[in-house]
Amino acid sequence: MNNLSERQLKTIDNQVTGWLAELGQQVRQGLGANRSVQTKEGDFRNLVTDLDKSNQAWLLDHLRNLDSQAHFVAEEGDLKRPETMVGHVWFVDPIDGTLNFVHEKTDFAIMVALYVDGQPTLAWIAKVMSEEIYHGGPDLGVFCNEQKLPAVVDRSLDQAIVILSGRRLLSGEKPYRLLAEKALAFRVIGSAGISFVRLLQQQATGYLSKLSPWDLAAGRVLSESLGYQVKRLDGEPVNMLLSNTVLIATNKMHLETIKVIKD
Amino acid sequence: MNNLSERQLKTIDNQVTGWLAELGQQVRQGLGANRSVQTKEGDFRNLVTDLDKSNQAWLLDHLRNLDSQAHFVAEEGDLKRPETMVGHVWFVDPIDGTLNFVHEKTDFAIMVALYVDGQPTLAWIAKVMSEEIYHGGPDLGVFCNEQKLPAVVDRSLDQAIVILSGRRLLSGEKPYRLLAEKALAFRVIGSAGISFVRLLQQQATGYLSKLSPWDLAAGRVLSESLGYQVKRLDGEPVNMLLSNTVLIATNKMHLETIKVIKD
Repeated sequence: MNNLSERQLKTIDNQVTGWLAELGQQVRQGLGANRSVQTKEGDFRNLVTDLDKSNQAWLLDHLRNLDSQAHFVAEEGDLKRPETMVGHVWFVDPIDGTLNFVHEKTDFAIMVALYVDGQPTLAWIAKVMSEEIYHGGPDLGVFCNEQKLPAVVDRSLDQAIVILSGRRLLSGEKPYRLLAEKALAFRVIGSAGISFVRLLQQQATGYLSKLSPWDLAAGRVLSESLGYQVKRLDGEPVNMLLSNTVLIATNKMHLETIKVIKD
Repeated sequence: MNNLSERQLKTIDNQVTGWLAELGQQVRQGLGANRSVQTKEGDFRNLVTDLDKSNQAWLLDHLRNLDSQAHFVAEEGDLKRPETMVGHVWFVDPIDGTLNFVHEKTDFAIMVALYVDGQPTLAWIAKVMSEEIYHGGPDLGVFCNEQKLPAVVDRSLDQAIVILSGRRLLSGEKPYRLLAEKALAFRVIGSAGISFVRLLQQQATGYLSKLSPWDLAAGRVLSESLGYQVKRLDGEPVNMLLSNTVLIATNKMHLETIKVIKD
């Protein structure tokens, strides 16, 4: 499948939405059970749970069945990454916000995205604990479960609630500090998926963080579809196969931010 | 009423819980409607809505009916504040997290607390959008709606998710910076009530902020009842009639924090 028709897009959207509903239910049921927690790359902040691994395996199995010629980019394990965005590329983040998952038991997400020849095409963010699945894309529109979401209002920086990476703000990186100072208020949440949900719900106006491909892929599809700009701080497009420092914001806020950082 | 019996405490708990359920429903229904927003004290971050004022008037009416001899401390208007904590003192925050209320339409709370001769006695935090009312006190225990909450696990600082005032962190105040650096992770939420809820649910381990009496009163009653320490950073008790920089944290985290700040 390439050059997907609207009917094909809808079929895939329904299929994956159903899987995420099923997976979300499993996760909620499993939250009472003990989980084995390991640290990854020696960093105790970067926790991997059994559930990360089993969610990813389950999702990859189903997606490979659906789209056997596709390439896959996923957070866990030693999956061979594609070298280009040609054809179908699926991105999977089995638990985004693992530290929140382990310690807060809320504010984590499961994310899936499909890009076709580099074009953002379809995406899903499952906000597991509140049983909300955000899904859709540029052709279908964006939905929270069955409800269609409106296009974003073009707010300016001084009226913006901006979400920032706490660790990067703390390490004194200039763009984070400037946005914290110039915005109406800032928030630190600890999950890319939940941050994107706040943008989709227009509870926040901007989000600045350094994001891995699986952190960014789904949120980019959905937020661009509602009218947000998703760009690097120099105004250049993001590279979906690398980590990017990326600002997701309204048009106005994007222009103002680039100006503020240059000054 | 003074030296309240357990039966009297339960009666008051049920009464006020019912009022907050009713008020929460009104607020949720009103959220679609346009609200008139004014700025207070020339600070655009400090928004006052009609709803703040009408919620407070409604709550004070009902509380005065219940407890006619009591004193009242509330956020809005020119209510005369008591000079001592003798007798019954009620604290009312009609919308805590007004900026979240206006911009995010989530993460705000309604808070009420009763102190008797300075003793934390009963409190309520209504997490309006998720229809949760946290209530109880040292004699009754702490409940989320009907469900009793367990005592807090005594986690240490390096295992803590700590909630910080974003503006104070940004202005470079040392204790905020130190906690952000030493904790497992930090969050910025923008509402004292929601921060306290995260402590009660053990989704966070500590919370540092400068809080007005109405920001602190209910959260102090409920968090102390579950075993948290609620103290100033010098280890001294808080003064309920003034603003305090206050750390709410587990025993271990409190001791470690005081040590870290002294070093």
